[in-house]
Amino acid sequence: MRRNRPECDTSPDPTDVHPAWLPPAAFRAVGSRHTLVHGDGLLVDTVLREVRLACATHGGTVRRSADGPPAHLVLALTGRSPQPAETEAAGRPGGTAPATEPSGRTPSVVNDDGMRRVLDAARADLAAAGGGPLGDEGYAVVRHGEVTVVLADAPAGLLHGLFHVVRLGESAFGAPHPARAYRPVMRRRMLDHWDNVDVHPVMGQVERGYAGGSILWRDGRAHPDRARVRAYARLLAGCGINAVSVNNVNVHATEARLLTDRLDDVAEIADDLRSYGIRVHLSVNFAAPVMVGGLSTADPLDEKVRAWWVETTARVYARIPDFGGYLVKADSEGQPGPFSYGRDHADGANLLAEALAPYGGVMHWRAFVYNHRQDWRDRSTDRARAAHDTFAPLDGRFQDNVIVQVKHGPVDFQTREPVSPVIAAMPGTRLAVEFQVTQEYTGQQRHVCYLAPWWHEVLRFTPWGDDGPTVADVAADGGGLAAVSNVGDDPFWTGHPLAQANLYAYGRLAWDPRLRPEDVLDEWIDLTFDPAASADPELLRRTLHEIMDDSWRTYERYTAPLGVGFMVRPGHHYGPDVDGYEYTAWGTYHFADRDGVGVDRTRATGTGFTGQYPPPWSQVYESPEQCPDELLLFFHHVRYDHVLRSGSTVVQHIYDTHFAGVAEVTAMSDRWAALAGLVDPVVHARVDERLAEQQRSAQEWCDQVNAYFHRKSGVPDVYGRPLY
Amino acid sequence: MRRNRPECDTSPDPTDVHPAWLPPAAFRAVGSRHTLVHGDGLLVDTVLREVRLACATHGGTVRRSADGPPAHLVLALTGRSPQPAETEAAGRPGGTAPATEPSGRTPSVVNDDGMRRVLDAARADLAAAGGGPLGDEGYAVVRHGEVTVVLADAPAGLLHGLFHVVRLGESAFGAPHPARAYRPVMRRRMLDHWDNVDVHPVMGQVERGYAGGSILWRDGRAHPDRARVRAYARLLAGCGINAVSVNNVNVHATEARLLTDRLDDVAEIADDLRSYGIRVHLSVNFAAPVMVGGLSTADPLDEKVRAWWVETTARVYARIPDFGGYLVKADSEGQPGPFSYGRDHADGANLLAEALAPYGGVMHWRAFVYNHRQDWRDRSTDRARAAHDTFAPLDGRFQDNVIVQVKHGPVDFQTREPVSPVIAAMPGTRLAVEFQVTQEYTGQQRHVCYLAPWWHEVLRFTPWGDDGPTVADVAADGGGLAAVSNVGDDPFWTGHPLAQANLYAYGRLAWDPRLRPEDVLDEWIDLTFDPAASADPELLRRTLHEIMDDSWRTYERYTAPLGVGFMVRPGHHYGPDVDGYEYTAWGTYHFADRDGVGVDRTRATGTGFTGQYPPPWSQVYESPEQCPDELLLFFHHVRYDHVLRSGSTVVQHIYDTHFAGVAEVTAMSDRWAALAGLVDPVVHARVDERLAEQQRSAQEWCDQVNAYFHRKSGVPDVYGRPLY
Repeated sequence: MRRNRPECDTSPDPTDVHPAWLPPAAFRAVGSRHTLVHGDGLLVDTVLREVRLACATHGGTVRRSADGPPAHLVLALTGRSPQPAETEAAGRPGGTAPATEPSGRTPSVVNDDGMRRVLDAARADLAAAGGGPLGDEGYAVVRHGEVTVVLADAPAGLLHGLFHVVRLGESAFGAPHPARAYRPVMRRRMLDHWDNVDVHPVMGQVERGYAGGSILWRDGRAHPDRARVRAYARLLAGCGINAVSVNNVNVHATEARLLTDRLDDVAEIADDLRSYGIRVHLSVNFAAPVMVGGLSTADPLDEKVRAWWVETTARVYARIPDFGGYLVKADSEGQPGPFSYGRDHADGANLLAEALAPYGGVMHWRAFVYNHRQDWRDRSTDRARAAHDTFAPLDGRFQDNVIVQVKHGPVDFQTREPVSPVIAAMPGTRLAVEFQVTQEYTGQQRHVCYLAPWWHEVLRFTPWGDDGPTVADVAADGGGLAAVSNVGDDPFWTGHPLAQANLYAYGRLAWDPRLRPEDVLDEWIDLTFDPAASADPELLRRTLHEIMDDSWRTYERYTAPLGVGFMVRPGHHYGPDVDGYEYTAWGTYHFADRDGVGVDRTRATGTGFTGQYPPPWSQVYESPEQCPDELLLFFHHVRYDHVLRSGSTVVQHIYDTHFAGVAEVTAMSDRWAALAGLVDPVVHARVDERLAEQQRSAQEWCDQVNAYFHRKSGVPDVYGRPLY
Repeated sequence: MRRNRPECDTSPDPTDVHPAWLPPAAFRAVGSRHTLVHGDGLLVDTVLREVRLACATHGGTVRRSADGPPAHLVLALTGRSPQPAETEAAGRPGGTAPATEPSGRTPSVVNDDGMRRVLDAARADLAAAGGGPLGDEGYAVVRHGEVTVVLADAPAGLLHGLFHVVRLGESAFGAPHPARAYRPVMRRRMLDHWDNVDVHPVMGQVERGYAGGSILWRDGRAHPDRARVRAYARLLAGCGINAVSVNNVNVHATEARLLTDRLDDVAEIADDLRSYGIRVHLSVNFAAPVMVGGLSTADPLDEKVRAWWVETTARVYARIPDFGGYLVKADSEGQPGPFSYGRDHADGANLLAEALAPYGGVMHWRAFVYNHRQDWRDRSTDRARAAHDTFAPLDGRFQDNVIVQVKHGPVDFQTREPVSPVIAAMPGTRLAVEFQVTQEYTGQQRHVCYLAPWWHEVLRFTPWGDDGPTVADVAADGGGLAAVSNVGDDPFWTGHPLAQANLYAYGRLAWDPRLRPEDVLDEWIDLTFDPAASADPELLRRTLHEIMDDSWRTYERYTAPLGVGFMVRPGHHYGPDVDGYEYTAWGTYHFADRDGVGVDRTRATGTGFTGQYPPPWSQVYESPEQCPDELLLFFHHVRYDHVLRSGSTVVQHIYDTHFAGVAEVTAMSDRWAALAGLVDPVVHARVDERLAEQQRSAQEWCDQVNAYFHRKSGVPDVYGRPLY
């Protein structure tokens, strides 16, 4: 599948792995030109290696010096000294950069006259544009005469700038333009791996993983295929991710030891990720002092426990100086937590945060806490309320380096949910918003489901009404974004080749949530499929866009309707089972009866969940007339003949959307069939196979959901289509 | 838990295993008397060992000779020579009988005058009673003066006669009575173990096992605890079972090799079972010629395949001369079969039968064949029809030593089903009726559910109407009974101590299906709990009887109503999920909608399944008015307000029975609580723990089923009880 790959390619990823959005062709514009690289440090080495690799493929040249022939591209640090962390990392014995240039030089001043003039002009241009410092990761791009200049204050910025130019391709080398500065909106753009070190008897190696085994772990140790991990780091950097939590939030016995005697395994992964500017975080078990520390308690207010975390964390930093911090799932779905000791989650989070603080580490503390032993008979309890009930009262009690990590919706990564009210409820706390790139509830990478439009809706949502800040603003001011990875050791990384777009888009939206998901999709298509080199670039581009752009709404149409959620097979969560969770302890109900369906979460007659929102949403959601159609059944129990804002009745809407969703999948398959010959045949075959399953599954969803509501309501379809 | 166990006890079962229905106390009447044993052979050795063990505990004496003091009990072969098979088995090096008596003697004629007179009188008595030969396993009991005499033609009969006297206890030694002959109604009384040799990743070591691991296999080999296997054989003989299939009918890779290079493992188990008169059978994979034989086909009409089975079977008999035969699940739930080669099940069964015939082996061929990839939308297909559709046309085509093994109901061991129409459809074929002692669908040995009343109903059912033969008659004339074992390596054998009664009762009903289940229950109670030695024998006896006797109907009441079946959680089949199988490929539906529920299997408007029965049942089941209430929803789709023969409406019946079932479980628990102090505290605690789970589960069943039908029908409970 790696066609057009030259003999001299020294790319670190093995030949049988798909190159995703960084194939050699993506570097054609850069690699066919002359590039100068100014700067020093581990990540500048990486920049140089990337450009050198591109040039080997495409015939350009690259030099790391200030003198020589005129360049088409200048990648330059702006003279600021390398940051301490970078210096240290670069000098570490574990560093993996091939030091082909003499190291120790710090060309902090560009000394070639021609280049100096270009850089001076670019800097002046940037200053004129009102640009302040670019920061740790920002960069500016200027097109000056025949030369494109990327400026950065720090090495990571230079790497991100390089990938920016790669994304632009030839258009980076068009008409001159003044300086444009790019800084990440989110300081931390994190990916959480739910990878188990040991294979779990029920959940397998990657919990909720749909792309094979772990690329980070195998047979209880760090995965021996280091090249694959480095190739992964490169892809993550290429879309903007800068932090990775390397193990499942459900921390079992073996994984608990990563913190102590298995720390070398973590350090090994950290070494590989570091050269692409990515820090390692670790999921830890709140009961670690008992599990691996030999203490009799994990009480957060116990002095011995506190000392244990301080000492243990000191050892972590001694081994991994740029370690990012801890991630904890506590008092949730069986994981231990502070509740066991009569403490609250601020006590718990602050305990670990205190240990991390001296090193600049952060404590990601998940707000996904709820009672999973709920009595389905008791309609007064409401899982959607749980995170707010638990965390909102704690606002202001968390230390500065605690990040409370909040799932974007109040339940659990459903295809459609409202935004979590916790996001508007903790102004005195740093919040990170958590997404799920792995498609647990959205087709498990057997269905095409491009999730960026969904995330974009969440990110631009204004919890306090139109004039207030967005969810993205809250995250940007707080802890940034986190998301569950969709990657495994599958040759396509993500099982479904088109699911790569979700990982790419997550990184890009985390860097800049103002990006339009359709533009990000086109970026990804251009990088991944190289339409320019195809027989029909426009057909290829347009068709892929049409298949993917609306695929999340298509998925929504043929699955659970109107925001009701969780009509999935229990356990594995794939495929329909309308009553699958209806009489269980998981708190995920729809209460369908012969008259109507939906969860009454109003203050007036329901669980009162709407009261967790500030105005205007507390009013909007309270009213069945004002509530957006797509969330109606999340907030209200209504009759089947209730007329939606769309004009349709609830039950006819269910029929219509389900039939429409199936038809859209058919159209998707037809479109994909038309791409035969324009797409790598191996990719084409894999997607073909998945589309067949998606078609089968969509039909099953449609028929089961329609049959269920037809049998319950007795209402026929107005168009007389088959209901079983 | 083995209280009252004397030091000199040489019982073969380990001390931490419950003695089930053969505790030392059960042998009190025999063991405290003087016994003479006449006869020779392996099973007479076993009889002698059993009596000797009893005497060591209870102070009696036993001799194997014709002279000596007067005896209270004479166990005597009637002078017939030992059977060839027994002779051979006794002489084999693998024989395990402790030869404490000088062997080689054949006291075929009783030579003590007193004893000779007793025996002559007993024989005369038997002849006067019109008794013909007692056969391989039969026996006669005479009480003559102060002596009880058990006569048998063959050693196995003597062993069964001994256990008969044990069951009678003191009453075997009461008033004189003339000879009574006992012969098994079913020639073969078989127990099928669904034990995997290797642990299966989904099904575990024992498929549908609820009592721990296998007692026959461990770590891929025959279980090293041979004493446990012998103790098991003793219990089986003690209730009348004489054949055991030692591995799961789903034959995976390792198990397929039991037929060839792993045959020694089977022989080892055969050695242990032989000394209690039990033959070993083996589940084999129809594709064995390919899987382990290196052939390219398993086509039953292929000459090489035929030769392979002939040779392989010859090797089996060379190693295990009294090997019972094969058991095959073919073309079912993924197991291979003759359909793969365009052949039918007669072709398949006859192939293996031919190989077994020279040795007297039998081929048990399961009729459990159906399409498990059914389209739930297609109401014309019907899993209940499948066995009849497949097998009835083949009647007369099976060789004499083929036994077609038919599940008692047309679906799959549900709590309530009609009798399978296959039982009346194959007069030219030897049929065995298959039961399920393991409680897959009847509470998984966490619920008290005494199944004998259910089996008894099936066995006395008259497929051709009142004047015709019963199901028991069909089985007696054919292949007897088979049943899936409920035993594992749990210290109580069956997880739930009271579930031992099901295994006991199965063996007893297989011996004599005319026994009343309530009498068998009392037998089991008396043997197992030794009420005579308790502080309140009557309370103990009566309470246990009350708890267990109606427990199957109690279970039926709180689970799936009116014969509809399969409202269980998919996969593991424990606990309620009314729609769990409703939209699946398994063919197990109820079609509940807002108006009614049930499966229309009539000829008039449904799947036509009723037409598979002969009159009168073809008419009775066709009519919703004549159909027995308890099967109504199996045969008919009716409105919720349909009035049952009981006078109740369907939906009110559902509510009433579910509330009643829960109340009965509460009563059960209360009764059990009253037995504290009268029952071994370890047993009491285990049952207590299970009853708590049964109570929880019954309530869950009740609330879910009632909520489901209330939400669908909208009909309130006439008594206003809570519906959620």
